[in-house]
Amino acid sequence: MTMDTYLVGLIGSGIGPSLSPALHEREADRQGLRYLYRLIDIDVLGVGPEAVGDLVRAARDLGFDGLNITHPCKQLVIDHLDELAPQAAALGAVNTVVFEGGRAIGHNTDVTGFAASFARGLPDVPLERVVQLGAGGAGAAVAHAVLTLGTGHVTVVDAMPDRAADLAAALNRHFGAGRAAAATPDALGGLLGLADGVVHATPTGMAAHPGLPFPAELLHPGLWVAEVVYRPLETELLRTARAVGCATLDGGGMAVFQAADAFRLFTGREPDAVRMLADIAELAGVPGAGVGG
Amino acid sequence: MTMDTYLVGLIGSGIGPSLSPALHEREADRQGLRYLYRLIDIDVLGVGPEAVGDLVRAARDLGFDGLNITHPCKQLVIDHLDELAPQAAALGAVNTVVFEGGRAIGHNTDVTGFAASFARGLPDVPLERVVQLGAGGAGAAVAHAVLTLGTGHVTVVDAMPDRAADLAAALNRHFGAGRAAAATPDALGGLLGLADGVVHATPTGMAAHPGLPFPAELLHPGLWVAEVVYRPLETELLRTARAVGCATLDGGGMAVFQAADAFRLFTGREPDAVRMLADIAELAGVPGAGVGG
Repeated sequence: MTMDTYLVGLIGSGIGPSLSPALHEREADRQGLRYLYRLIDIDVLGVGPEAVGDLVRAARDLGFDGLNITHPCKQLVIDHLDELAPQAAALGAVNTVVFEGGRAIGHNTDVTGFAASFARGLPDVPLERVVQLGAGGAGAAVAHAVLTLGTGHVTVVDAMPDRAADLAAALNRHFGAGRAAAATPDALGGLLGLADGVVHATPTGMAAHPGLPFPAELLHPGLWVAEVVYRPLETELLRTARAVGCATLDGGGMAVFQAADAFRLFTGREPDAVRMLADIAELAGVPGAGVGG
Repeated sequence: MTMDTYLVGLIGSGIGPSLSPALHEREADRQGLRYLYRLIDIDVLGVGPEAVGDLVRAARDLGFDGLNITHPCKQLVIDHLDELAPQAAALGAVNTVVFEGGRAIGHNTDVTGFAASFARGLPDVPLERVVQLGAGGAGAAVAHAVLTLGTGHVTVVDAMPDRAADLAAALNRHFGAGRAAAATPDALGGLLGLADGVVHATPTGMAAHPGLPFPAELLHPGLWVAEVVYRPLETELLRTARAVGCATLDGGGMAVFQAADAFRLFTGREPDAVRMLADIAELAGVPGAGVGG
């Protein structure tokens, strides 16, 4: 009677505007599944990020099939899991938990999601030297994806120098020495002049943080621009870059492919990412928040 | 995006064969609602009945809209609720919890469910003297319904004399002195000879407890027989009583109307009980367990 039914959710802070419920539920409806995606917002519950362990155990006990995990719980959740998939272990962050026979297994579909979006949206672009802006949670996942895609060298730029240095060190440990370096925003002029492409992984460009993440004059036609922000899909950075002549990739693809990869892990069924891209183009027309989640 | 979606569940022991998920989800599907009904079995979780408080709080935090509660948690849950509906308070047992703005409100739809089923299935039968077999959780709910329906006097019969006496005392406190008495099974011969009807609220007749709850020769054509067991719908008691010429009521109606009343509380929408009666006739064909739940 309860075959082919799925209960999943998202744990994080300030996740009310998340598009994940709609993305998952629409695809499940097309596949004829009974599928419910609940938002579990620690701010609404009035608990701290450390409550993630109790929430994960409660979800397992109450019949959830899996969870997505977002800021600020992606690292904290790891201590409460029974097993980690390789990309989650390498990154030290989990955005997807699957319950299997009472065990909680952590995955990271931000990494696979960005890689799939990039391969689809910017095939055959040069990858010798990449600059990445933002070394937070989304930035770490995207930097792992960028090096997995075959990038020769990535420079991680963040206004918090320690955060950039820590991420660069972790990348060099995992992918080999000399693949990553850290820098501060004042170096961007020189870096972008020599780069093949730039990945933008800060909140700038979201409705709550409008504007450009760096001066428009640093853009040049030889630079491709990949965006992580997906609400709005058309950020000021993407609009400006396209006007300059840059090849661009919006953040909707990463949002869709991380959801599609989680959907596959939750259900064992193959989602149709092309249909989900059409969904996000429709859904992200609504103003709201949105890196990750 | 997440409007008109409902997440509910059932907390209890040994509830694997419950028909509640199918009853609720089929009706929700006909109404076009996204509705998921999860079984939360304390035996499967390896916790005791006293865990019901933690499970109710967890369900509230994880986005459940409500819960059904069954054996052995219907009394224990009361200490963990913020408010009780009148019939739940009178009975001292809750089978339905609704979450409203972070508050947990307890209801009892076993009482209203039996009353609705009886009024539909045995209208206009005499109610001067009723004998009820079984003073457990289901028995207490049904006895309250029987007196609410206008029964003059009910004799509660149970193999555990204290349990019968306690229920009779509670009924007299609530409905007025002299409305209820207690007896043991050896008195059944005399009681049934003088009674208008008998309500059967013990597990006898379920697949795991086959047989008759009392000797067949105690049945007589002037007696109506109302059954609480609904798996199977056609118990040996009902078959035997119909052969004798008794008017009968099967347990499917109570199972449906308690579910329909819970559905209305969870969703604010009016269920179609007639369609749900057709569902249970189909579903209860499957052998399995089943008082309540």
